[in-house]
Amino acid sequence: MRRILVIGIGAGDPEQLTVQAIHALNRANTFFLLDKGQEKHDLIGLRHEILDRYIEQPSYRLVEARDPARDRDRTTTNYPPAVDDWRHRRADIYERLIRDELADGECGAFLVWGDPALYDSTLAILEDVLARETVEFDYEVIPGISSVSALAAKHRIALNRIGRPVQITTGRRLSEGFPEGVDDVVVMLDAHQTFSQFTNEDMDIYWGAYVGTPDEILVAGPVAQTAERIAELRAQARENKGWIMDTYLLRRTRQNREIRETPEDR
Amino acid sequence: MRRILVIGIGAGDPEQLTVQAIHALNRANTFFLLDKGQEKHDLIGLRHEILDRYIEQPSYRLVEARDPARDRDRTTTNYPPAVDDWRHRRADIYERLIRDELADGECGAFLVWGDPALYDSTLAILEDVLARETVEFDYEVIPGISSVSALAAKHRIALNRIGRPVQITTGRRLSEGFPEGVDDVVVMLDAHQTFSQFTNEDMDIYWGAYVGTPDEILVAGPVAQTAERIAELRAQARENKGWIMDTYLLRRTRQNREIRETPEDR
Repeated sequence: MRRILVIGIGAGDPEQLTVQAIHALNRANTFFLLDKGQEKHDLIGLRHEILDRYIEQPSYRLVEARDPARDRDRTTTNYPPAVDDWRHRRADIYERLIRDELADGECGAFLVWGDPALYDSTLAILEDVLARETVEFDYEVIPGISSVSALAAKHRIALNRIGRPVQITTGRRLSEGFPEGVDDVVVMLDAHQTFSQFTNEDMDIYWGAYVGTPDEILVAGPVAQTAERIAELRAQARENKGWIMDTYLLRRTRQNREIRETPEDR
Repeated sequence: MRRILVIGIGAGDPEQLTVQAIHALNRANTFFLLDKGQEKHDLIGLRHEILDRYIEQPSYRLVEARDPARDRDRTTTNYPPAVDDWRHRRADIYERLIRDELADGECGAFLVWGDPALYDSTLAILEDVLARETVEFDYEVIPGISSVSALAAKHRIALNRIGRPVQITTGRRLSEGFPEGVDDVVVMLDAHQTFSQFTNEDMDIYWGAYVGTPDEILVAGPVAQTAERIAELRAQARENKGWIMDTYLLRRTRQNREIRETPEDR
């Protein structure tokens, strides 16, 4: 039986790996690295750094493959079919990797940024591959520090208020309106600064980009006073690095809050 | 200046500590261990195990204190005042610990189960203490693997469906009805098996107790077919150990799902 490990490797700081994840890295003999294209080159580099740093017997094999691009533009009207097609093409690749690059009894690993449980499709794709019944394997999931946890820690905040719920959603969903029944909303995968829709509301934003890496930028404050600045920092950073990974918490509030930005010498 | 580290130590498996958390443990010279009473004795033991395992220079100091009990009964009508009073009494204790047990320039640590960002009051209490202006300190937060991440990994599921939101809430909130606008709800701090209210709905439950520890119990399946079994396992485990820590995901679905339970030889 082939064995697959889906390893959460944290949000960008190599020190966010758990002991369990490090042990898992050392159990695998083949690593599947899926490259999303030129713009994510830094992330591939960071994955190599993690392997170099934590693997004790450097006899492992790397198999790099191209992850098919996905149409992430939320203005497209055929969003779910686009996702289905993309997932199908990814399943083709994962199937081929597991079947052709892993011998029976071998152990392969997929490294997942953040936590495999949150807005990551690896687990769904593995289930798709299993459902095809073309290759047999067993798999195990090692949880990781999500970008949400990393963001909250850097801002030194809890995600929820006492006894209150918190919702995690996408920029695309948020653009349809602030969710019902919650005051605390974490937003991921937002390519369109959707927080800017809420500058007339009593809300705080806790925003972070490249959290846990040397390029980290953090801004917190009333969304009315910070939205423009965040959009500017975001555009700048995206241009400089060629890609951006950011997350934020929007929190309804009645209190006045100060604005904070780090690094302060920007 | 005194320095405080708030360290997420994962959901019960000592291997869930991150490298960052281990480094933080080794920076602290005083550890504040707050005991919630007899029933949580196992958890105090597990914290000692973590310190023994990961601290390289065993010259640290342990300061144990009694955490005031909180009235967790949701049927009480004065829920928010009870919380406020409890938080105030905890702030008194934290203030005393930081002021009297830590010299200027020393570094103290609070160990938090799971992730300090999720249903934990340590950060709010530290802010309360700072607001009193009776003792000066700076603090830093190290994120941890939450019981939510640990649960999802063991069940090998994502918390969200593709492009859909997920809400994290309490048993108390869930008892007021299934949240609006979401199909995936993670429930924490549920002392009353609130999932049993949803046995007439097309929902799956992914339940786990003591996740990541040798006592781990996992059950997944349609809530209609598993609610009774989970309530039974929960009551049994609680009686045997004297305490229980469980979390679950409720997922609206239209599909038929199989029932799974581990350990299978129960």
